Order: sequence, then structure tokens, then C-alpha cells
Amino acid sequence: MHTKRKLRHLLVVAAAALALPAMAQQKNAPDSVIIKKLYDEALTSTESYEHLRYLTKHIGARLSGSPQAAAAVEWSRQLMEDMDLDTVYLQEVMVPHWVRGDKEIARVYNSKRMGTVDMNIAALGASVGTGKQGLSAEVIEVQNFEELEKLGKKKVKGKIVFFNRAFNNTYVQTMESYSDAVDQRGGGPVAAAKLGAVGVLVRSMANELQDVPHTGNTRYEEGVEKIPAAAISTKDAEQLSSLLKDDPSLKFYMRMTSEMLPDVLSYNVIGELRGTEKPDEIIAVGGHLDSWDIGEGAHDDGTGCMQSVEVLRLFTDLGIKPKRTVRAVMFMNEENGLRGGTRYAEVAKAKGEKHLAAIESDAGGFTPRGFGIEGSNAQLAKLKSWKPLLETYGLTDFAPGHGGSDVGPLKGQGTVALIGYKPDSQRYFDYHHTQIDVFENVNRREMQLGAAGMASLVYLISEHGL
Amino acid sequence: MHTKRKLRHLLVVAAAALALPAMAQQKNAPDSVIIKKLYDEALTSTESYEHLRYLTKHIGARLSGSPQAAAAVEWSRQLMEDMDLDTVYLQEVMVPHWVRGDKEIARVYNSKRMGTVDMNIAALGASVGTGKQGLSAEVIEVQNFEELEKLGKKKVKGKIVFFNRAFNNTYVQTMESYSDAVDQRGGGPVAAAKLGAVGVLVRSMANELQDVPHTGNTRYEEGVEKIPAAAISTKDAEQLSSLLKDDPSLKFYMRMTSEMLPDVLSYNVIGELRGTEKPDEIIAVGGHLDSWDIGEGAHDDGTGCMQSVEVLRLFTDLGIKPKRTVRAVMFMNEENGLRGGTRYAEVAKAKGEKHLAAIESDAGGFTPRGFGIEGSNAQLAKLKSWKPLLETYGLTDFAPGHGGSDVGPLKGQGTVALIGYKPDSQRYFDYHHTQIDVFENVNRREMQLGAAGMASLVYLISEHGL
Repeated sequence: MHTKRKLRHLLVVAAAALALPAMAQQKNAPDSVIIKKLYDEALTSTESYEHLRYLTKHIGARLSGSPQAAAAVEWSRQLMEDMDLDTVYLQEVMVPHWVRGDKEIARVYNSKRMGTVDMNIAALGASVGTGKQGLSAEVIEVQNFEELEKLGKKKVKGKIVFFNRAFNNTYVQTMESYSDAVDQRGGGPVAAAKLGAVGVLVRSMANELQDVPHTGNTRYEEGVEKIPAAAISTKDAEQLSSLLKDDPSLKFYMRMTSEMLPDVLSYNVIGELRGTEKPDEIIAVGGHLDSWDIGEGAHDDGTGCMQSVEVLRLFTDLGIKPKRTVRAVMFMNEENGLRGGTRYAEVAKAKGEKHLAAIESDAGGFTPRGFGIEGSNAQLAKLKSWKPLLETYGLTDFAPGHGGSDVGPLKGQGTVALIGYKPDSQRYFDYHHTQIDVFENVNRREMQLGAAGMASLVYLISEHGL
Repeated sequence: MHTKRKLRHLLVVAAAALALPAMAQQKNAPDSVIIKKLYDEALTSTESYEHLRYLTKHIGARLSGSPQAAAAVEWSRQLMEDMDLDTVYLQEVMVPHWVRGDKEIARVYNSKRMGTVDMNIAALGASVGTGKQGLSAEVIEVQNFEELEKLGKKKVKGKIVFFNRAFNNTYVQTMESYSDAVDQRGGGPVAAAKLGAVGVLVRSMANELQDVPHTGNTRYEEGVEKIPAAAISTKDAEQLSSLLKDDPSLKFYMRMTSEMLPDVLSYNVIGELRGTEKPDEIIAVGGHLDSWDIGEGAHDDGTGCMQSVEVLRLFTDLGIKPKRTVRAVMFMNEENGLRGGTRYAEVAKAKGEKHLAAIESDAGGFTPRGFGIEGSNAQLAKLKSWKPLLETYGLTDFAPGHGGSDVGPLKGQGTVALIGYKPDSQRYFDYHHTQIDVFENVNRREMQLGAAGMASLVYLISEHGL
């Protein structure tokens, strides 16, 4: 791959030399012409899609602290080193190192209706294990924390608390269904342990009835016992709930050998094209390089990373010299700590860097819809003024919204606008945090349209400020 | 299924009786409230998705004239009979009966570089066969008809003409790439035969490099020899082209036993809810019930049919009585004849029916984008005035565009507006006319959002006219 790229670079440089008059002309080209070039190149090159293939198929799942996360750091560093950038560097950050251990085992046994029934679970990130002998207990089902509180210690003590509130499917944006349900995953173990529970099961964060469990991070609190917690597939959640109706005293067995190891040194990976006119004004565009340890981290967030690298490639290969500095950032440890995003903001503050915008792609590589914006009214108005340039490419939604987890810590540093790239959300929670978040479920064109949309927005900000 | 539905009907009727005051209130509810109800019901019921599962998995591929097409007619008739509609009826139409015969065989043999190489082809609809012994000939590759003409009889005679112009991937709407390339499939055999060719291969109509060939209809002309014509997978088209560069005299073998049989009696299937105030003003909503004979006709066009039935179900189950007549039409024979659409328009004309709008869903069951509109400026303006009600549901694209093949013959009958439901187009040509156009590739929510969007538009027209 390296040799091939080097050769292509030579060809690109040669072509650029021949094309100097054209390039000069391009300098004065209307924005719409440059944007069309960005889309044409993004849609006809397989580069970003093949990068995603490498990241997902040859490196694979890459949870913080894992050897695969280290491989992803080194590979993405080399990938950007091999491009015509001004700087590529790593930013040190200590990250949590949680390991899942053996594949989880779970079953209902001695249920009146069906006897023993195997169940699909996945330990939640940060969860302690059950010990090798596993854990057996009765299950008590609740829909929310209020219901749990009402049950009280007497009914909860010694049991596995089963949080079974389903996604509300009436939300058109699936992110809203997620926000509405995810408190169970994050806060379940602490709330249950306070009442003496011995374990927690959380219905998977998904719109569909599926066999695959959806993992994701959970939290413990100082002074509250750490009890094992797992996601259970939505289908098995339905079945468990049904079995409990007949037989509230059935027993559930779960075995997890997950554990938290000491922190590990890791890195954010950063590549930069220096601005020709205002190099001190920075536009960051990024995704997170870490992923959960099951699946391949394709939509979450291989696509966001490879789209960010693609933004730089589109600029360099098309000979577009940004007036302001454009920086691609592969953040480390979004999934279970946000250490990379936090570190990036700390360093930016210490260096006195001025970010105009920080754009994050962390909602999957699906067909484009728009951008969610955290910024001033003036910034929102300026971004909306560009909608006529972008709506023919499917980017029609310019509205206040979530910028992104990794860019979040930058908030309040100067006048930075946090901008979340917003693809269509319908399919995201079919794959999110599961073994089926794999390359095959990413559509080439949908991913490329996202990269081109991000590049177009970066270009507009680099030309006109924000 | 019947018993279950009947039972549910009783419950619905009972509930409706109890809910009479609420219903009266609903009559004066703002449009936005009714639209929200339509979406909530569509997104939380699995009915239309389960209907699609039945149509694709239990009936399967249903080319016009096939036993499966007859099964689809009878099943969809029963499906609508079992709903609370005012009328369900069949509309007779004679349809072509083309059969593929044995699975096609194709290979390059004696190529200099690779010897014998198997190739994936699929006979084009209407194509004659090669005879059981198959056909062997040299191949001549062209990109378009101009190039073919220039070659002339001398270079074309006795050969297989290979039309290999790829999709232009720079179009954001894949339908444009299709329009740009599909002349090769439709017009290839006649153009080639006029110059003495013995067969035709057409590069599959697809954005991606794939192994699966994409079938589709072709045409012959009176007085021009009918030569066998097949689609070749995009990957094999690339390979064949590459082999031809080394070895222009390589031989290609193809065997197809396809043939056209006598026409068969078939039907459009129509279900109707009579309007309470203006029953003579009709809003038709439909898809086509026939599909190609490979795959399951899931996106093309099982989703369109089941969305249309769902429009009626949403109205009946929510107790919405439309002011104007709403009609779901499952057209027969869109793929290779358009006889059903033609017949429907003939009957409408003969009966003096007044269609306000004919809405077709035949672009796949993907996430909603909007509507393509063929109508007067006043109609376009009225439809656009409803955009604020629909854009939060992802329907943002209201523009002049293709109404739909089946509704096309209605054009010019009174003031009917032809409206094509427009889902996102990025993935359509991954599946279109192939063995992978199957149920598993349809996302539940994407299909349901389409049905709800169609129902909302039908509701608005039924309330306010067009």
C-alpha cells in the first residue's frame, strides 16, 4: 500500500505541476465548483472505503488498551505520514484497560415453562466479573429507577435486577430513543447495588428484536459495591420477561470474567494541513479510533475516522490549499473514558490554540442528513447560509444539536463551534456495539457522501471563517 | 393470520365504538396531530413488515405470468378483503409470460492469460435463448451506440457485442446513473443485431463491483433478428474487458434457454376506502406486485405494495375517514410490459374516474427523502406548502420529478398529479433486479417511515384536495 501511494503521490505531484494554470483558476472558483470537485473525487475513489476495510478486517475490534488499539494508532499514523500533510503527530494519553475475558455464559434454569434456556449477554464495559464459578440468583424486572426504588431493599436484595425498558420506537431519530433508554445501562449497577442486588441485566439498546447483545459502558461509584452487569439481547429480554411472568422465582445464571487492568499509555493521532492565510485558526475534524471489543467497530467509529482522513486526502489530491489550518483527529478512548477527547482539549488550551470549529463524525457511515450544531446564533446562521450549497447533496438538516462526545471538552475554549455530522439514524442501533458492526454493513457511497459533506463544510469554514 | 386479524378487527370495532367522542374530536384535529398518529402507528406496528416477509419469503419472486404472480394476486386480494375496506376487486389484464429456463451458463474459454473463466450472467427479460447447445463467438466491446455504429457490420458481424459503459458514480442520485446507462440494456440487442451480431452482453446496472448480475427488460423490433441478450455482473464485465485487451479474439460461450410463451390472464389488485365527502375524487397509491424472477422482489417492489396496503390499514385502524376516496393499487407487470398500469388508466378513462393524485412507491423501501412530482405549478406549490408538516419526518425533497412507471399512463387524464415517493437512492442498485433483492436487505423502520409518509400525503390531499 505504501509503495502504491508513494507512486501515486509522484503522479499527483507531476499532474499538479502540469495543471498549475488550472490550479490558479481554481483559486477563484466559486464554492459550488470546489464542492462539486470534492464530491466527484470522493464518489469515484475507493480509497477511504479500502482504508475502512483495512481498519476493520486487518486490525479489527480495538478497545482502549488492547494490542489492536495500538495497531490502529500506528497504522493510522503511517497512513497520514504517507500523505502530503504538513504535520502528523501522536498525543499521549493514559487510557483505561478493561478486558472482557471469556465469552459470557448465561441461562435461565429450572423455569416452569421451558426448563433451561440459554441467553445472549455481553458484559458491559467497566463491569467486574462474576468469578469463574458464575453467579446464580433470582431476577427482578423493572422498567426504570423509580420502580426500582419503590421495590426497596427487601425485594431487591440478593437478586439480579433486570432493566427492561424498551426503545421508544415512535421517535423518528433513533438517537432520541437511545438517549431515552441509556440511563439503564449507565446507572443501573449503582442503583441496583445500593439496594443490595448482586447483578444487573440491561435490555440491549436497539430498535429491533435481535439475538445479538449490545455492549456499552457502565459506571460504578466510590463506596457502592461493584456488581457484575451485562446487556441482554432484545429477543432474550422479551423471553426472560415472559418467563418471569409465569415464574417469578426462576433462577438466572451468568458467568463473566471481565476485569479492569491498570491504565495503559495510548495516543490520539493527528494529521494537519497548515492554513495558507490564517494558520493559527484551526478546523478540527475527527472520529474515535477505539471501538468496542466485539464486532469490528465499522460504523462506530471506523467510518468517522476514515472520513476524517479522507477530508485531508481530498484537499491534498485536489490541490486545495486551505486558508485556515485543517486537522484530522483520531481520538482514543471515546467508548469507555473519553480520555482522548479530554486530553485533546487540555493540550489545545495549554498551547493557546484557537479552534474555529470541531466537527465529529460518530453516528455511523450512513447516508447524509446534515449537521447538529453547538455554537452561537451567529455561527448557526452562518452555517445555515451554506445550506443552499449542500442540500443537493442530501445535507438539509442544519439545526442546534449534539456536536460530539470527543469534541465536547473543547466547549467554551474561545468561540469554537462544535459540529456533529448527522447521517441518517434508522439503521445505527441495528449494529451499534455489537458483533455485527462490521465492514459489510457499511455502504461505500453512503460513507463517501459523508466524507465529501464534511470536506465541503471544512472547505467553507476554511475559506470564510466561522 | 386471518383469524388473528378478524379478532383484532372485532377489538378495533369495539374500541372505536367506545372511542366515539375521541373520534369526533379527531375530526377537528390539526393535520400535524393526525400525521403524528400515522407515524406512531406505522413505527410501532410490525404489520406491514410482516406482510412483506410473507410476500417475499412465502411467495417469493413473482414474474408476470408465473404461478407465484398468481399467488401474489390471490394473497394480496385476501389481505385487503380481510381489512375494513369498502371495496376490493381485481382488474383483468393479459400479461407477457417470459420464462428464464435453466440457470444460465457463461464462460470465456481459451483466453491467453487465464484460460477458461466462468462468468456470471442473467438473461435479460424478453430475450430469446441460445438453443440448448449454447452460443460461442468472439466478443467486441463498446461503450455506447455511436461506437458500435462506427465499428460497422464488418467488425460486428458474427460477434457478441459487449456494452460495457459503467454507471457514472458522480451522480448523487443513483437513479440518474441508471438513466444514463440503461439505454444499453433496452436498445442493445436491436442495435447489435442490425449490424449482424449474434448475441449481446450488457454490463449490469449497478454502482458497485459485484458478482451478482442484474437482470431487467430488453426490447426487440419487428423485422430485426432477435438475438440472445444477457446482463453480466460488474466484476465479470471488468474482467472480460481486461481479458479482451490482451486477447481480442478470445471466445465467449453462453447458454440460455429463456423463451417467450403466450400471454397469460392476470390482474391488478385494488382496495378502496370510499371518501365521506367527495367519493368521486380519487387518490390512488400503489406499487407493482410483479417482480423479476430472481431474488424475492423485496425492494422492487414488495415494499411499495406493502406500503400502499399499509396506507389503508393506517386509515382504518386509526379510524380516519378520508373525505376523498383512497385506493391502493397493486399493479401487475411493471417489469416487463407495463400492462397493468396501462390497463388501469384505460379503465379509469372508460369509467370517467377523476384522479386527483396517483402516488407510486417503486424506488425501494429505503429511508425517506421526499416526493418527485409531475403536475401543474399550482399542484407543486400546494404540495410544497405541506413540507413544514413533513420535513421533521425526513421528507424534505419536494420537486418536479418522475411520478412512476405504473401511474404514468394516467397522465393527462383530468388534472391528475403523478407523485413518486422518493426514498434515499444510495443502496437501490446494490439489490435492484438481483438475487440479493431479499427481505433481509429491507430495514423495518425505513420501510415504515415510507408508508407513514405516503399515508400523510394521502391524508393531506384527502382533506384539502389538490
